[in-house]
Amino acid sequence: MELTANEIALMIEEKNYSALKQKLNEENAVDISALFAELPKEVLPIAFRLLSKELAAETFVEMESGEQELLIRSFSDSELRTVIEELYYDDIVDILEEMPANMVKRILANATTETRASINTLLKYSSDSAGGIMTLEYVRLQPAMTVSQAFERIKRVGVDKETIYTCYVTDPNKKLLGVVTVKDMLLADEGKLVQDIMETNVVFAYTYEDKETVAKTFIDYGFLALPVVDNENRLVGIVTYDDAMDVISEESEEDMQIMAAITPTDTPYLRTSVFSIWKARIPWLLLLMISATFTGLIITSFENALAASVALTAFIPMLMDTGGNSGSQASVTVIRGISLDEIAFHDIFKVIWKELRVSFFCAITLAAANFVKIVLVDMLLIHNALTFSSEGFLITAVVCLTLAVTVIAAKFIGCTLPILAKRLGFDPAVMASPFITTIVDAISLLVYFFFAKAIIPGL
Amino acid sequence: MELTANEIALMIEEKNYSALKQKLNEENAVDISALFAELPKEVLPIAFRLLSKELAAETFVEMESGEQELLIRSFSDSELRTVIEELYYDDIVDILEEMPANMVKRILANATTETRASINTLLKYSSDSAGGIMTLEYVRLQPAMTVSQAFERIKRVGVDKETIYTCYVTDPNKKLLGVVTVKDMLLADEGKLVQDIMETNVVFAYTYEDKETVAKTFIDYGFLALPVVDNENRLVGIVTYDDAMDVISEESEEDMQIMAAITPTDTPYLRTSVFSIWKARIPWLLLLMISATFTGLIITSFENALAASVALTAFIPMLMDTGGNSGSQASVTVIRGISLDEIAFHDIFKVIWKELRVSFFCAITLAAANFVKIVLVDMLLIHNALTFSSEGFLITAVVCLTLAVTVIAAKFIGCTLPILAKRLGFDPAVMASPFITTIVDAISLLVYFFFAKAIIPGL
Repeated sequence: MELTANEIALMIEEKNYSALKQKLNEENAVDISALFAELPKEVLPIAFRLLSKELAAETFVEMESGEQELLIRSFSDSELRTVIEELYYDDIVDILEEMPANMVKRILANATTETRASINTLLKYSSDSAGGIMTLEYVRLQPAMTVSQAFERIKRVGVDKETIYTCYVTDPNKKLLGVVTVKDMLLADEGKLVQDIMETNVVFAYTYEDKETVAKTFIDYGFLALPVVDNENRLVGIVTYDDAMDVISEESEEDMQIMAAITPTDTPYLRTSVFSIWKARIPWLLLLMISATFTGLIITSFENALAASVALTAFIPMLMDTGGNSGSQASVTVIRGISLDEIAFHDIFKVIWKELRVSFFCAITLAAANFVKIVLVDMLLIHNALTFSSEGFLITAVVCLTLAVTVIAAKFIGCTLPILAKRLGFDPAVMASPFITTIVDAISLLVYFFFAKAIIPGL
Repeated sequence: MELTANEIALMIEEKNYSALKQKLNEENAVDISALFAELPKEVLPIAFRLLSKELAAETFVEMESGEQELLIRSFSDSELRTVIEELYYDDIVDILEEMPANMVKRILANATTETRASINTLLKYSSDSAGGIMTLEYVRLQPAMTVSQAFERIKRVGVDKETIYTCYVTDPNKKLLGVVTVKDMLLADEGKLVQDIMETNVVFAYTYEDKETVAKTFIDYGFLALPVVDNENRLVGIVTYDDAMDVISEESEEDMQIMAAITPTDTPYLRTSVFSIWKARIPWLLLLMISATFTGLIITSFENALAASVALTAFIPMLMDTGGNSGSQASVTVIRGISLDEIAFHDIFKVIWKELRVSFFCAITLAAANFVKIVLVDMLLIHNALTFSSEGFLITAVVCLTLAVTVIAAKFIGCTLPILAKRLGFDPAVMASPFITTIVDAISLLVYFFFAKAIIPGL
């Protein structure tokens, strides 16, 4: 891409509109929206007006809602009408959801009766459902059409459709009979009937189905589009692959943010305000900080043991961290397994059994490595708090035993909590590192002091 | 087209070669290959030899692999060489893939060193590059074809192509001139030329580009397929949306596993052996456990301070965890920002400035909340190690100050390390929670003991 935002601003300043118009209309909507994002607010409406009708609509969809709002405010009613009529209904709904009430009102007032009716239909569905992500612009064919009649229909109605490559065959009541692709029709004889080449074994979704489930199914099949039907199996819309892909990647991002104890948002980081970032992070930090009161209480209640041997204190961070890391490995694995539909509630015992074996081997390896490390490094090399003495070896035994038990407990908790959370209707991703760490901290300390009291005489 | 297969057969029988040669060379390769498909096996090699060198190659590519094999068997070595040198490299690869092993050997033996090298290059693209995920099965059109000729070609060659909906227009050297969609062609007049409706401002990738970057760009644009070109801008393949989607979701999964200190794998959890899971997790646990030696050392070197006040020990887990959580919030945010191409190296000061402000507000909130919690809960309610005394308030001041400084330091480290890692060519995801936690643990302890010594008399 040769054009830069500075050049656009300069050309507008020089009123060199016709050259700019030509340059802009050679670019594609995604690039233009990126350029427009860098333009000063006052020139954006001027630049936007230089786009062709179709390109203007495509660019509008790609822009951030703040810029969309700015543009709509600068539009005359007739300009607004032109843009609205070029947009797909599902895109209009997405835009409306981000707009303040008075803007929504103005947009709806400038839509045609048909557009308004379609928007209202789409707004009825929950934004988390198949209905909430579907579009109404699809090609519908009749079973008795020939291939060449079908192509004629596609040529007639196709220009406004979000996809023409998969067409939907329905009866007069709009009941879905089958799907047929343009490829199938191109490779068939022109005289063949649609009903003879259509695929009747159609994968579809109901309007109320969870959008994540729908997106996943449909991407697993590698479809370009999936029909959405109502309770009477009447076709009401289609989900296209780009919307499904958005759902999938939004969900991954959400998972990652929740796993890092951040309230999820889909605004790009550099465009999010400091206050918004603070608001997304602080509740979790507060909650987890307050939960750490328990670890403090446990330590306080063992103050005599700790005062008697500072060497015991020195291993607390290592024990807590290793426990936390072990637990979060298990929890993240299971959380993603659930997200990818690889792990269901009925797998819980299979998962526990697997994690118990894994944690057993991890526990042995870590305890052994830790023993070697304490003897070689702490005792012989740097003469740490631990001495090469019987007391030193007793503490080493306590540390290694605690490590082993903590790792097994951490992996057990890490793998079960996400599955239970899902079962109880919570987001399993909440049960990731920060949450698991807080629980495992307390457990590791309790185990530690239990073994210390049991093994070291006089504590 | 006036010529029929019967006429060709008849003219060959009559040995009317010069007239046939003239007629054939007026036709285009697509039509000729359609005619040749109907010829008796024994006359096909004769007819083929009447074609000009270039047309012969173009026709050869259009033919079915059975006919190609028949022709190659009839070729002398020098005829074979002539055809091979006229073919595009990926067409040769296409042909090779359909041929039995002895034919492949003969073709490679008759290719020039340069051609053989190119074929091998094509077969050898790194699996992490655009070349490694591209497919060679796309529809290629000539700019001077009419829409109806284009459709004829699609009908002929389309059945084996991974997508027919986006077609690629090239010159005879295969330089990419434009793309045209089946939708555009269906909505255009049949007599229109491809070059008049094709989109010439084409987004493409180079073969060597990182497959993740390619997949992301292309999904951002919402394409169904993206052309891949070599250094001379010759079209060598296309990436289709399903392959791009696979790349994206594999990458997300990888990121999440690395962030949880797990060596990434794409085997579903329940199908992974206990040993493999252990092997993916244990190196990181060991590494992080050994790193915790430093926190142990720090605690040991302050043993007098800790022995003098067990209350100080009680706050260690809370300080470490809050620091770790603050740091991992920042690191995960930045890691994903880098993955999604929202954050680049030159943004580092923007990111640091943002995180400093966010961490400042987080630090104040957490310190204030912690102060209130200590006074209300530890001092007044549960009569913890801290008493409602001047010593109690001094320790409280130390804890709150440490908390504030640790949170700011943790967020600073959390946001800078991933960017620096990326700059140095490492995977930024390594710099997530477990790694950050280990560093932040040491820092929080150092800060803690520094403030304790400075503020509490007699430590």
